Amino acid sequence: MRIGVLGTGMVGKAIATKLVEVGHEVRMGSRDAANEKAAEWAGSVGEGASQGTFAAAAAFGELVFNCTAGEASLDALELAGEEALRDKVLVDVSNSLDFSQGMPPSLGVCNTDSLGEQIQRRFPEARVVKTLNTVNNEVMVDPGLVAGDHDLFVCGDDEGAKAEVAALLESFGWSRERIIDLGGIRAARGTEGYVLLWLALLNSLGTAHLNIRVVR
Amino acid sequence: MRIGVLGTGMVGKAIATKLVEVGHEVRMGSRDAANEKAAEWAGSVGEGASQGTFAAAAAFGELVFNCTAGEASLDALELAGEEALRDKVLVDVSNSLDFSQGMPPSLGVCNTDSLGEQIQRRFPEARVVKTLNTVNNEVMVDPGLVAGDHDLFVCGDDEGAKAEVAALLESFGWSRERIIDLGGIRAARGTEGYVLLWLALLNSLGTAHLNIRVVR
Repeated sequence: MRIGVLGTGMVGKAIATKLVEVGHEVRMGSRDAANEKAAEWAGSVGEGASQGTFAAAAAFGELVFNCTAGEASLDALELAGEEALRDKVLVDVSNSLDFSQGMPPSLGVCNTDSLGEQIQRRFPEARVVKTLNTVNNEVMVDPGLVAGDHDLFVCGDDEGAKAEVAALLESFGWSRERIIDLGGIRAARGTEGYVLLWLALLNSLGTAHLNIRVVR
Repeated sequence: MRIGVLGTGMVGKAIATKLVEVGHEVRMGSRDAANEKAAEWAGSVGEGASQGTFAAAAAFGELVFNCTAGEASLDALELAGEEALRDKVLVDVSNSLDFSQGMPPSLGVCNTDSLGEQIQRRFPEARVVKTLNTVNNEVMVDPGLVAGDHDLFVCGDDEGAKAEVAALLESFGWSRERIIDLGGIRAARGTEGYVLLWLALLNSLGTAHLNIRVVR
């Protein structure tokens, strides 16, 4: 499958690299076609990896990952373009963490909205699925870094899109039984709000290789 | 021990009843000394249970639980009185959920503050410990309602207060190894933010008898 990955940070690199490893053709997108980090990534991965603007990456992908920083996501997707995102599965991995006031950071919109919902509202013809934003970038693509059973959440308004994403997540190493469907995209405020607890756990446990398992 | 429980809702009743069961003398506090729910509770429990104003309950307790609704907590504690709370362990169980706009509710202060921190700032000589706010009131006092291992969080700036609270939690049925100390009271924004995920889980799993286990 051809996949566009928007974002050249640790999350974008981790996901783009994993996608190539499991057999996809990936174009990493950034604001500037000559982005050094993206070029370096494409060069280091080689076959299956390319890079370009947000618009080029979105147009290339049959499916698109938003791995940009949360506060920049809407702008990046604007540059990707509504037309390039139309009818495509758009996997939103973003969290909006504002560290400008030190630790713990604040979450821009967690209280009465979420980035996932904002993105779905702005691009109503994209099929937004929120997932992976509750774990560290290394754990995203290698769940075995955390011992035992632990869970990943998906939410979104399009059932078919969630099924496609669940299949991709399985190829990353997540077992199907550990992928919890929280329902519509509105549940994104749950997973984005949880990041505040994740940060407290990071701080007290001293490792980012952590996750939660839901029990009942 | 003599314990004051502020609040006559489901959380206050569950905790006050459990505290009497495990051998404490409990005074339930409410805005009005003639509160019917508090009188009914005290009557139904009998020996060890009494009721009165927020001030009477706080003065009675060697330790005080805040089980009032989050948006009313600061007012209730104001009525309890700074003097009655001085040097006492104040267990804050509150969450500020605003359902006025429908589901999912918003959290008043989760973004850049927490109720736990607000309470500690307003009552600097109380020894505030935030805990139990991440589970349903029935699970709070009967963790066996959720199968298998699952975790409870405590945070607060006073180590001795956290140790006292951990001992109380053990008497509720929580095993010591499953009580995670998140550090200072600032971590309350983590557990209060998590409630957004808890609500999404409630909605998708259809049961309030749920919790999480932290794995790494």
